[in-house]
Amino acid sequence: MTTGQLHLNAFLMNTGHHEASWRLPESDPFAHVSLDHYIRLARIAERGSFDSLFLADGPQLWSNLAQRPAGALEPLTLLTALATATEHIGLIATASTSYNSPYNLARKFASLDIISGGRAGWNIVTTAGREAARNFGLEHEPAHADRYARAGEFLDVALKLWDSWEDDAIVGDKAAGVWGDDTKVHPPRHQGTYFSVEGALNVPRTPQGYPLLVQAGSSEDGKEFASRYAEAVFTAQQTIEDARAFYADLKSRTAAAGRDPDHIKVLPGIVPVIGATEAEALAKERELEDHIVHDHGVANLERLLQLPLGTLELDRLLPSDLPPESAVEGAKSRYTLVVELARRDRLTVRQLIGRLGGGRGHLTFAGTPEQVADAIETWFTQGAADGFNIMPPVLPSGLDAFVDHVVPILRTRGLLRAEYGPRQTLRERYGLPRPANQYAQPVHA
Amino acid sequence: MTTGQLHLNAFLMNTGHHEASWRLPESDPFAHVSLDHYIRLARIAERGSFDSLFLADGPQLWSNLAQRPAGALEPLTLLTALATATEHIGLIATASTSYNSPYNLARKFASLDIISGGRAGWNIVTTAGREAARNFGLEHEPAHADRYARAGEFLDVALKLWDSWEDDAIVGDKAAGVWGDDTKVHPPRHQGTYFSVEGALNVPRTPQGYPLLVQAGSSEDGKEFASRYAEAVFTAQQTIEDARAFYADLKSRTAAAGRDPDHIKVLPGIVPVIGATEAEALAKERELEDHIVHDHGVANLERLLQLPLGTLELDRLLPSDLPPESAVEGAKSRYTLVVELARRDRLTVRQLIGRLGGGRGHLTFAGTPEQVADAIETWFTQGAADGFNIMPPVLPSGLDAFVDHVVPILRTRGLLRAEYGPRQTLRERYGLPRPANQYAQPVHA
Ligand SMILES: Cc1cc2nc3c(=O)[nH]c(=O)nc-3n(C[C@H](O)[C@H](O)[C@H](O)COP(=O)(O)O)c2cc1C
Ligand SMILES: Cc1cc2nc3c(=O)[nH]c(=O)nc-3n(C[C@H](O)[C@H](O)[C@H](O)COP(=O)(O)O)c2cc1C
Repeated sequence: MTTGQLHLNAFLMNTGHHEASWRLPESDPFAHVSLDHYIRLARIAERGSFDSLFLADGPQLWSNLAQRPAGALEPLTLLTALATATEHIGLIATASTSYNSPYNLARKFASLDIISGGRAGWNIVTTAGREAARNFGLEHEPAHADRYARAGEFLDVALKLWDSWEDDAIVGDKAAGVWGDDTKVHPPRHQGTYFSVEGALNVPRTPQGYPLLVQAGSSEDGKEFASRYAEAVFTAQQTIEDARAFYADLKSRTAAAGRDPDHIKVLPGIVPVIGATEAEALAKERELEDHIVHDHGVANLERLLQLPLGTLELDRLLPSDLPPESAVEGAKSRYTLVVELARRDRLTVRQLIGRLGGGRGHLTFAGTPEQVADAIETWFTQGAADGFNIMPPVLPSGLDAFVDHVVPILRTRGLLRAEYGPRQTLRERYGLPRPANQYAQPVHA
Repeated sequence: MTTGQLHLNAFLMNTGHHEASWRLPESDPFAHVSLDHYIRLARIAERGSFDSLFLADGPQLWSNLAQRPAGALEPLTLLTALATATEHIGLIATASTSYNSPYNLARKFASLDIISGGRAGWNIVTTAGREAARNFGLEHEPAHADRYARAGEFLDVALKLWDSWEDDAIVGDKAAGVWGDDTKVHPPRHQGTYFSVEGALNVPRTPQGYPLLVQAGSSEDGKEFASRYAEAVFTAQQTIEDARAFYADLKSRTAAAGRDPDHIKVLPGIVPVIGATEAEALAKERELEDHIVHDHGVANLERLLQLPLGTLELDRLLPSDLPPESAVEGAKSRYTLVVELARRDRLTVRQLIGRLGGGRGHLTFAGTPEQVADAIETWFTQGAADGFNIMPPVLPSGLDAFVDHVVPILRTRGLLRAEYGPRQTLRERYGLPRPANQYAQPVHA
């Protein structure tokens, strides 16, 4: 049974989510640092009346350069430029709680929220990996639990900063020479384990109050964090059963945390490979797989599984003695997903690399527009998703195909708005209320 | 004798540099968070073929709110939005070396440089004051010398990061499946006193290589820093004699540091109060002074002079027993400038506040467009300036007045370009060479 409108987020990444996409004739290998490329993508997504678009991030350069487009424009900077080139779509930037200061980051998101007219969102990540840690003065990656503890305190401080001006702190009384009301400004005076932050933010309260809070961790800690703070959750799910279990789990955790479970939107990722016929879609998928350079894939997999380089063999299964998730300090849930996928479908390393090449663990779905729309509708109506993180394998063509061929079907079925209508904030697009200010006195009845 | 083109930088600040500007009938008290206001200002500056525009910054909220517009859009965010609304003008953002990480900041400036087509500049500041320190986990302001030591190491790391990709690291060979050349990427592997930064930047080398490096400290440490790193220097000078001495000092320090003294451009600030007649200009200045709320001014002065609140009296001179500059840990050179100004002109506290209200220590010059142009030409041709930091007392009207009435005179006199001509990078506008990459092998002859 359809339960209203589904939400669509466009996950934009260079020439596409398939790791070999840059090698296709249509692709621009410099697209990852081209503002015009991203403006074009944002406008396609607006044509499809998407709720939002999203940029991933990590503060490190992933070696090796030979393999595929490396580096990127920093997401908050790029989204600010996109804010001026779009009108309706939400703008979600990834930023790390492990390698930023709350004061700096809160300012930047507040500024983007003002500049975009209330369209800012923050994908909150704790950043796995030693590479990032070593760019910020640390020898080792902080432990997973520490990263999430810091993330929780980071959010508490950021929320205090975003609320540090009440909405009516600005008076602007020229005649009296009184610009603002100092009693409506509330310095956090926060003294915690990870942070001490004394003063109020130097940005007034923004259209949304604060950015839409998005999260994408699927470990135990990650889900606990999401249940407390997240308003939208990105997740990688391979089967509808897994997705339904994840969905139900997150909604009930959110209720247990004292929040309305409808105020957390669950968005699994899907890599849609679209063809006019199923055969055409599968041919497109094969063309992409043919462009994979397997040596690179082996090294990536060894890094994810924390194995010494040279351990894996292309035409054999994964070793049977891999450590349990609890021994992993990096991306725990991604680790488990990949291992389970390989075991369940008895994939060789070569096959696993092919499968991961498309969506790095996200569901790849090759088919006709009808079939893609059916899959989306089924997941949506069967309690597996409130919407989807759309991850085109090739950009811009894969987003164009989705908007031109799948979006009209979703609209006809009443699952997606026909057009944006009046301007709304990102939170309004997702059907979420504007948060109250924690310092504001309730108005007397 | 005219020595070529003078450089103009538009210092944009809310409703203007005069602290009472927001109270004028023409001013929008919410302009400080209005993107449209800043777009309008940027376009006026482009009409005047300015080299650059500039935003100041500090990561703290200055109390008190009653006094004047507080808070702002974070400069790097705002400049990114302005990059998409302008075509030629350079974009200089202030950012602190004391309260940022090199990796994060280097990425943001690199991204802005790419997005703007090579128009990014960085006003490097060490950030005085306990307020900022306490927003970043510190109890006290770090000592002045420590802040500058950290700034020097920050720059060394940032320069390594910006050079970490050689210009030709990107190959983009689709057929061979080779995107980049890993031998042309150079991780800094920096281990220093303040920072350890291991990996290469995750942004390719940018149009300018790195942002134009600007600096504004006038203390001994500040000038030493400028002579090593700065390509442009902002400075507050009250008299042409002081300005000439500063100019000569900085050029000779730069030569002593082994650099071409022509590769550091000195830009004193000027607050031009423009009227059709001199009387009209003076009336405009008086109108602004009449809008000052003196209580606020006294408190600000007490903070700058590190005096207990309530020490100063409006109609008396400054106390004669003020400590020497060496005892000041905040903004040393600003302290000395204010004290000397008050002593030289025997100003009461009230008069001093009036004088500072306009330009906070910068030269305020009220006159006709001819008189303003004459002053600029004199300073420029007499070895006191390579150009000016234009600080309109009221915005947008003061910038409009400068561009409509002073700029044409400067153009007629051959001091300023008639129009931009072809696109150039910010460094090209200032007549500076694109920096070489420290890791690139010299090409064999
Ligand atoms: C759609 C999606 C996007 C993600 N984007 C990022 C990202 O941009 N940066 C990042 O560090 N992690 C990203 N992650 C990883 C998660 O934040 C998280 O670290 C990962 O899922 C492992 O979860 P866990 O740490 O809770 O085990 C993303 C995950 C998903 C599902
Ligand atoms: C035109 C101009 C603009 C400045 N802008 C800033 C600023 O945005 N942020 C800041 O912290 N300091 C700013 N300063 C202050 C200087 O960076 C420096 O701290 C001050 O001149 C004192 O110099 P000293 O620390 O070398 O004594 C500015 C100075 C001038 C002259």
